[in-house]
Amino acid sequence: MSTTPVALTLNAGSSSLKFGLYDIAAAPVEMAMGLIENIGKAPRLKVHFGPGRTPVSRDLAATDAADHRSALTTALDLLRAQFPDARASAVGHRVVHGGPGLAEPVVLTPGVMEELRRLSPFAPIHQPHNLAGIDAAMEAFPEALQVACFDTAFHRSHPRVNDIFALPREYYDKGVRRYGFHGLSYDYISGELKRIAPLIHEGRVIVAHLGNGASMCGMIGGRSVASTMGFTALDGLPMGTRTGQIDPGVIFYLVQQEGMSIDEVRQLFYSKSGLLGLSGLSHDMRALEAAGTVEANEAIDYFVFRIRRELGGLAAALGGLDALVFCGGIGENSRLIRERVCEGMGWIGLELDRERNAAGDTVISTDMSRARVMVVPTNEELVIARAARKFLCAQS
Amino acid sequence: MSTTPVALTLNAGSSSLKFGLYDIAAAPVEMAMGLIENIGKAPRLKVHFGPGRTPVSRDLAATDAADHRSALTTALDLLRAQFPDARASAVGHRVVHGGPGLAEPVVLTPGVMEELRRLSPFAPIHQPHNLAGIDAAMEAFPEALQVACFDTAFHRSHPRVNDIFALPREYYDKGVRRYGFHGLSYDYISGELKRIAPLIHEGRVIVAHLGNGASMCGMIGGRSVASTMGFTALDGLPMGTRTGQIDPGVIFYLVQQEGMSIDEVRQLFYSKSGLLGLSGLSHDMRALEAAGTVEANEAIDYFVFRIRRELGGLAAALGGLDALVFCGGIGENSRLIRERVCEGMGWIGLELDRERNAAGDTVISTDMSRARVMVVPTNEELVIARAARKFLCAQS
Repeated sequence: MSTTPVALTLNAGSSSLKFGLYDIAAAPVEMAMGLIENIGKAPRLKVHFGPGRTPVSRDLAATDAADHRSALTTALDLLRAQFPDARASAVGHRVVHGGPGLAEPVVLTPGVMEELRRLSPFAPIHQPHNLAGIDAAMEAFPEALQVACFDTAFHRSHPRVNDIFALPREYYDKGVRRYGFHGLSYDYISGELKRIAPLIHEGRVIVAHLGNGASMCGMIGGRSVASTMGFTALDGLPMGTRTGQIDPGVIFYLVQQEGMSIDEVRQLFYSKSGLLGLSGLSHDMRALEAAGTVEANEAIDYFVFRIRRELGGLAAALGGLDALVFCGGIGENSRLIRERVCEGMGWIGLELDRERNAAGDTVISTDMSRARVMVVPTNEELVIARAARKFLCAQS
Repeated sequence: MSTTPVALTLNAGSSSLKFGLYDIAAAPVEMAMGLIENIGKAPRLKVHFGPGRTPVSRDLAATDAADHRSALTTALDLLRAQFPDARASAVGHRVVHGGPGLAEPVVLTPGVMEELRRLSPFAPIHQPHNLAGIDAAMEAFPEALQVACFDTAFHRSHPRVNDIFALPREYYDKGVRRYGFHGLSYDYISGELKRIAPLIHEGRVIVAHLGNGASMCGMIGGRSVASTMGFTALDGLPMGTRTGQIDPGVIFYLVQQEGMSIDEVRQLFYSKSGLLGLSGLSHDMRALEAAGTVEANEAIDYFVFRIRRELGGLAAALGGLDALVFCGGIGENSRLIRERVCEGMGWIGLELDRERNAAGDTVISTDMSRARVMVVPTNEELVIARAARKFLCAQS
């Protein structure tokens, strides 16, 4: 049996399970990172066993990932086969909702689990899957320390004016607040900035986490001041299949005048809208950039425009801008989106260097740009592994 | 009988009727301006017969304004008593919704009325009242030219990216678009800027129409580029009793998790939220400024913050800012709100002159401010009277 302490990270989405294995003897070092997608339908596995190894990608038998529990068993079998001596002494979980109270990662106790279950109505699509993943991991690793990291936690530093909606006050007390999400990613970026650009970290920074889910966060001194997502992960920027910001009056119209059920509208807004809805083609930015159709271009135009508009809005919340940081699948990989977001943004102090942007440099603004533009790859799993390690060290 | 051509303007709200009488021999000159409020409940009349006269304000018998039709009769009786020789040769109506097609005022024909009735589902609270007012005026003035001016018309110059939501394309084709409202007010301000500040009019201007309803409009060259209201008059800034921008996920939560009906949520969002909901006290900014309670201050904080955030967002849509113009009841009268909106806005080029602001000057920015800040009283009725006169002149 290995003497190296190891942590497992789990990130259970609605039809996917991301898993990571980390050597946590010192700062966490990734040993493996895997993803099982399309759980319950035609599941597919991608896994990568550390640097220098070729990533593996293959279809799974339907029974290997019929649900999250069997997907977890499959993932663990795979890890055990590769690392027969490793035993996870901590398991870290990504949990979408920590409610108003949880501003930091926590060790999962029955009391905390109870509290997290009470938050499920706030995130009915994601929270139950997250909790099912925790239950399965507790069964599989009864001896391990179980830790939860919350997508909402990083934003609990919002000043009250960014935490409320203009509803009667009792709704705030009941939990209808601007939680903000993608907190693990923002937490990671904040830490990276502190390491590689401490003066920028102290300033007014907007981070654009642009992936299949997308949001932006305004920070001062590395702490969240405002974000584009609100009560749910539907608000703010348009996403792969989600509307982002939309007049609430559209819902009243669709239900009261067009006769749709509230659940049909919810499915429309979450699953059939965004880039997919506008393009009629794909939720995937790579496909849209390649397509070049009028509809695909319009989806790109809208995505870019809403990012620019939120950039101005968040800058107002920060009182100006010292740096814009791109991360997430689109933010890290699409030079087109970065270029178009920054076009004509001299009024806010941004000037992109096209060559640096094309080359994929970390700093992609010109030397004369008043505000920096940066690309920083995010790493949510590492934030979870660090939290797991921190609690483990505190215990021993 | 008078030989002076006269136009009547009518603006029918959900429980109010605003009416104006104009001499339109040349550019319209106001002869009378009146308002009947609280129709169907305890109606009250305010009327002002031109400059130098004392405004009159008194309660009406319930039967004098049991509905919009009887309120119109009462208003007309009052005008006839004051101006026995005046006969309206044109009646101009404010109509909330002109749909995707109507980008200018129009003469009301049976065909146009049919089209406006088809738009009622887009504005179910306001459009039917507007149309009932037109029907009543057609009966009262069968000979007069009837003209409609639309709150949405001014915004039809929106580029497509500001006209769409990230929904499947068929919803846009069905009319689910970002119409924008308060168009008569923005049209008036655009005209005033052209007259008093033609160079600013050519530039990048944000107009903040802040009243019981509130929105902001970004213009270039006097034409609307983007606005904060969308499909309905619920979106954007918080208002007297309306939420403004809110995560659509809140509606799904309230209906699916809290068991509210969609109609209860609609009433909550339209009638119990905004400044009233946050303060628990009043929808009226004057009352909130006077109150000084924690809750009233929080409502003011939120109102100011959302204006600032939209200011940044609209500046991004314009590519920077040359002027910010305040209008509407709050915009014209609250020096506190203007001061707080402009505080620390140096990053966007705004610097307020506190003394000019307190004195109520037209230009309230400092001489060194890169962008101008202005206060321009709006006049929606005059826009209607001008349109009525224009069509009358074109006819004769």
